Amino acid sequence: MEVMYSYDRLFSFARSVFVKMGCTDADANLAAGVLVSADLRGIDSHGVARLSGYVRLWEAGRINATPDIRIVHESPSTAVVDGGAGLGLVVAPRAMNIAIEKARICGTGWVSVTNSNHFGIAGYHAMMALEHDMIGIAMTNASALVAPTFSVERMLGTNPIAVAIPAGSQPPFVADMATTTASNGKLEILQRKHADAPLGWVQNADGTETVNASVLKEGGVMLPLGSDREHGSHKGYALGSIVDIFSAVLSGASYGPWAPPFPAYVPMPQDMPGKGLGHFFGAMRIDAFRPAEEFKSHMDRWIGRFRDARPAPGHDRVLVPGDPEREMEAVRRTGEIPVFESVANDLALVAEKFGIVL
Amino acid sequence: MEVMYSYDRLFSFARSVFVKMGCTDADANLAAGVLVSADLRGIDSHGVARLSGYVRLWEAGRINATPDIRIVHESPSTAVVDGGAGLGLVVAPRAMNIAIEKARICGTGWVSVTNSNHFGIAGYHAMMALEHDMIGIAMTNASALVAPTFSVERMLGTNPIAVAIPAGSQPPFVADMATTTASNGKLEILQRKHADAPLGWVQNADGTETVNASVLKEGGVMLPLGSDREHGSHKGYALGSIVDIFSAVLSGASYGPWAPPFPAYVPMPQDMPGKGLGHFFGAMRIDAFRPAEEFKSHMDRWIGRFRDARPAPGHDRVLVPGDPEREMEAVRRTGEIPVFESVANDLALVAEKFGIVL
Repeated sequence: MEVMYSYDRLFSFARSVFVKMGCTDADANLAAGVLVSADLRGIDSHGVARLSGYVRLWEAGRINATPDIRIVHESPSTAVVDGGAGLGLVVAPRAMNIAIEKARICGTGWVSVTNSNHFGIAGYHAMMALEHDMIGIAMTNASALVAPTFSVERMLGTNPIAVAIPAGSQPPFVADMATTTASNGKLEILQRKHADAPLGWVQNADGTETVNASVLKEGGVMLPLGSDREHGSHKGYALGSIVDIFSAVLSGASYGPWAPPFPAYVPMPQDMPGKGLGHFFGAMRIDAFRPAEEFKSHMDRWIGRFRDARPAPGHDRVLVPGDPEREMEAVRRTGEIPVFESVANDLALVAEKFGIVL
Repeated sequence: MEVMYSYDRLFSFARSVFVKMGCTDADANLAAGVLVSADLRGIDSHGVARLSGYVRLWEAGRINATPDIRIVHESPSTAVVDGGAGLGLVVAPRAMNIAIEKARICGTGWVSVTNSNHFGIAGYHAMMALEHDMIGIAMTNASALVAPTFSVERMLGTNPIAVAIPAGSQPPFVADMATTTASNGKLEILQRKHADAPLGWVQNADGTETVNASVLKEGGVMLPLGSDREHGSHKGYALGSIVDIFSAVLSGASYGPWAPPFPAYVPMPQDMPGKGLGHFFGAMRIDAFRPAEEFKSHMDRWIGRFRDARPAPGHDRVLVPGDPEREMEAVRRTGEIPVFESVANDLALVAEKFGIVL
């Protein structure tokens, strides 16, 4: 069962919740825009479905609604930003703006963030670069759910990478992906439907293969992109590791199995080597490499050629990264957004807690 | 059947070949060092096995042994380098050095390269950053062999990404991976043994699945990391695309299905949108983010913790990216390097052509 809401209604509700948590109006607007962009783009696991989780982290004192977000170290093209334990939804776009400002002067800008929290969808932050004729990059570490190749232990999060690249008359190229075989959100959808997962998504606590989509509740783990060694899981493991190191070891956040868990009821790890979650952002000015119009006209050719690639039997077209999310956004921006009933119930509880109306 | 050679013997032979092609002594040394580092590290497909291929490209006029390698566009943290149709083995380390110099001044350096050729193993170039307490990044596009998700057409190369990250007392973290399920080199090994490939590595010309390791000779394609849509091949496709765009669209090289083919007998594509192959290099100075010693001591903790992760039954240890290649190098540096008989025969023909001794 799903309940339908307009974008405006979800946005206003999320904004009201962030205001009730004590955010400034500007921060509440920003956070709500980032959060609900996930629902718009069809990444339902990262939108309002997370809102009650943020509230619980705030109640547990792990999110500061009025953070002191500041640069603690910098060079002409880099910065480390301390997010002041703020909402990642606010810290991340601030940090991405610093990367963009550095790129304006220096050609590129690279910002590693410490002491932050879950930042919504990586794609939102990467896409901030597009209107400046820049390539945007965003990544974050996350609570450990993923075992390295040959292991059964939760050592990495689903650690997503997003890359947004401007084009001319074509829509931009936007990749936004977990470095696991499938995102945790896709697993959650299967759990709600009591459906099996394909082999290669998750593994039992003892390291054997399983189709049980709920196996994370039984000590199981998610698998890196590639699923098993024979199909390149060591590459997914390496990618997730790079995200962890760029986001957290470079910045001074907590990394690997010590990344702070998203559910507020899970105790914090012992002996944490850093503060909070970490993110990493990059902005590269196109005209630091070649004239932007020239690049964008080649991107149009690139995108057009890939869209025209010969489809395999049973498929009518070849997609370019970003197509599914953009098409979903076009539908949902003016239409309605379906929200799982369990999520709607969660939102009703949040509404009641703060005395606001959904 | 394999023939055994010492590192010194392969290095000297490769150097002599590059001198005979007309390279300066310095360039011949550099190119031989890059080439044979692949044999040392166990990436046999990218070492002396490629030497006769380079010679044929030179004979076909596609490699210039005395290239004019120069910066054609730059900003404080970026450059585009025209490789002058030189050996990628020479162009790539030159470009990586420019990235390192930019990082020294600016915190980070990013160099996109046009008009180049095959550059050996990406890991060599990324690792150049390590001795400077920098993170190194290297990628390249390559001849199209890989079909996007839902397609049967060769649109991308195996487009590798390498990332090298310094540590303190631990050896560095070095990831070096094709963005396909398996590298072309692994396929070639199966072809020589007349063995099957696992399902998910390659696909028939009609888009159906196959275990035929020789299917590329019959119009088949390689598959992006993830193998199929259900297991995340759209992510491997996106990664390969990002490598193509950063390496070739940013620099003005030829991209996608128009990337120049490695075998000299394959005609060049029509209507090429740029010049030669493209590469992309990055260098990030650690202390542009946090003091290098502090970072490296956290990397030691990171690496130690991942090596101590609980192994799955049937495995005695969990590897950190770079472990297998480093262990291979330790054996082969002072011992002998096995070379397939067919490769040794190829080298004998090259020796005869140039009147030199292997």
